[in-house]
Amino acid sequence: MNPRLLSIQPSVIRALAAKKTPGSIDLGLGEPTLRPQQRFFEAATRWVAENGTKYTTNAGDFATRERIAQHYGYPGMSEARNVCMTTGSQEAVFVTIKTMLDADVDELLVVEPAFPAYAKMAQLEGIATRKIAMRAEDDFAYDVDAILGAIGPNTRMIAIGSPANPTGTVLRRADAKRLADALLARAGEPIWVLFDEIYRELTCIDDPGYLPAFYPYTIVANSLSKSNALTGMRIGWVMAPAPAIDSIVQTHAWVTATASAFGQRIAFEIFGESGALAEQAQWYRTQRTAVIAALRASGMRFIEPDGAFYACVKLPDGLDCLDAATELVERRGVVAIPGKIFGATLANWLRLSWVAPIESFTEGLERIAALASAPVRG
Amino acid sequence: MNPRLLSIQPSVIRALAAKKTPGSIDLGLGEPTLRPQQRFFEAATRWVAENGTKYTTNAGDFATRERIAQHYGYPGMSEARNVCMTTGSQEAVFVTIKTMLDADVDELLVVEPAFPAYAKMAQLEGIATRKIAMRAEDDFAYDVDAILGAIGPNTRMIAIGSPANPTGTVLRRADAKRLADALLARAGEPIWVLFDEIYRELTCIDDPGYLPAFYPYTIVANSLSKSNALTGMRIGWVMAPAPAIDSIVQTHAWVTATASAFGQRIAFEIFGESGALAEQAQWYRTQRTAVIAALRASGMRFIEPDGAFYACVKLPDGLDCLDAATELVERRGVVAIPGKIFGATLANWLRLSWVAPIESFTEGLERIAALASAPVRG
Repeated sequence: MNPRLLSIQPSVIRALAAKKTPGSIDLGLGEPTLRPQQRFFEAATRWVAENGTKYTTNAGDFATRERIAQHYGYPGMSEARNVCMTTGSQEAVFVTIKTMLDADVDELLVVEPAFPAYAKMAQLEGIATRKIAMRAEDDFAYDVDAILGAIGPNTRMIAIGSPANPTGTVLRRADAKRLADALLARAGEPIWVLFDEIYRELTCIDDPGYLPAFYPYTIVANSLSKSNALTGMRIGWVMAPAPAIDSIVQTHAWVTATASAFGQRIAFEIFGESGALAEQAQWYRTQRTAVIAALRASGMRFIEPDGAFYACVKLPDGLDCLDAATELVERRGVVAIPGKIFGATLANWLRLSWVAPIESFTEGLERIAALASAPVRG
Repeated sequence: MNPRLLSIQPSVIRALAAKKTPGSIDLGLGEPTLRPQQRFFEAATRWVAENGTKYTTNAGDFATRERIAQHYGYPGMSEARNVCMTTGSQEAVFVTIKTMLDADVDELLVVEPAFPAYAKMAQLEGIATRKIAMRAEDDFAYDVDAILGAIGPNTRMIAIGSPANPTGTVLRRADAKRLADALLARAGEPIWVLFDEIYRELTCIDDPGYLPAFYPYTIVANSLSKSNALTGMRIGWVMAPAPAIDSIVQTHAWVTATASAFGQRIAFEIFGESGALAEQAQWYRTQRTAVIAALRASGMRFIEPDGAFYACVKLPDGLDCLDAATELVERRGVVAIPGKIFGATLANWLRLSWVAPIESFTEGLERIAALASAPVRG
């Protein structure tokens, strides 16, 4: 057996989800509750009737990749050849880490709070990880100086999500520029940034910073899972400058050969219809306003999300988030995710997703506030 | 960069495919030319209209896995929990090798001629490979004694395809039983067998041996790509006894999270309709009879395929298969795959797929026979 696999802690989220009782309020969900746009499934099914569903090239269907590259238009990665279609953004992140780092010498810097998979994937590949925590007193905003200060001699890649899971934090335009300038000014081998923008369409602030617009050593991971309620379709992609993308395609070819041609066809349709990618974004903006009002009313300390569909709330000091989440799921009918899986800095926090109806969110929040104000221990 | 990736030779097949001229006869294809069964796409699209397309659990949709496990009914792996849905059988093989072997000590034994990905994936994972070649004078039939004799002190897994790519060789029932008995009689840690049965439905002999029926340390990789002309849908699976399957699911969870829910729904439909899995098999049986007649008429030495949709033909000694394939694609309008990518034992052979219309296959074969009888060098 692979000893690295055995060393990785099993997922806390799955263990909690298994304890969920019928009728409980699920604020643990990491996927939209909206329905996907049915017309794209119908178009792709008609396309299969005419064309079958054959292997695409390893990197994916050329026309689909061209539409995606042109849509974003990031400098140095605006052509079809800069895109590799993957099985969701999970595979996009996995093949990027596996390809770009040498486990014998390189190190991944994870900016926390962060999606736990970055560090777990590095662990699976035997790649060392360094972590830098953003500060609660800044509402976990990206602190460029802290990130730069955390770079070690072997740091070869920095993983940043924007909007971030779990905090919803978005890298601001001025910070993206400053980070890019500072990284470009460094001597020696360039440091790659893995820029995970899976929640990009669900951005609710006016000055988001798209790092690939400023920094040529950026590798982008994205998918249609969150923007278009297509989590189950597994349509993701990596965008990277050449020749890095060619190596990433090679790894992808060994791991999964190609992404689903059917899923790629859906992407082709979505990127071919103006506004289809952003069609569901308004729902999240409306929901976010109601969610922030409910959070204010709860009296709890919370992080106002810049984007994504999560909100982090603080528990009293001394109340461990895993104990709280266990109590909530076992006895109070609420699923919430313990913050510490996203970094030690969130040991007293819970991540709540707000894809449920606002009434359910508010009811769940009240139960959490009740626990926070008078925790009952078993 | 990952130095292991850099050490892997790029695919010869892709390089040859890139040289293909318009109007040439493609005997290089590794996928069906039949159309997939459209009704299953329509059913899955209706299902999305009602249910959306959400994440399944990492292992996959329970009902789909249950149908698959019960369909095969292999002892020790006949329940839903024994199945992990993957992005094609490529990911099935990848996660199996990555999970079950410890790169520091274990070794994979590849029975050649073999699908090149087994050894390439092991190389990517830093796992040592040992190879044992079946003999041309036996028409590359599986030689159980040779396989057993090749097991080294660190061999922890044996990779066997049946029907095999490229020879179409099927492990016979008596040989499967003998291999299982001998492996079970060994002292020490059990040796796993990775049994790749992606061409299972395209079996044309009467006594195929399904190793998992006899040997409890078998891990099965399969998919709907070849049986149902669904290469582009990427619906594969691993079947394995517990607890091995649980570790494989863990790796899969990091690599791709889950397989496509839409693809899984298509599998659910196919395994729910009696005969749907074997519906296209008759076409291959009819085609195979015509192909064997054409091969006999060509006068070339060939391997009569037990299954799959390939035939290997021998070139004259001294004519390297890569030189021949290059000459064929560049100047004679035929794509054929050089045998040596499947093992050194095929250095004088070509792999021809026979999914093209029989007239094209026959014409291509005549051009190859002409080259073989009077090779012209550039």
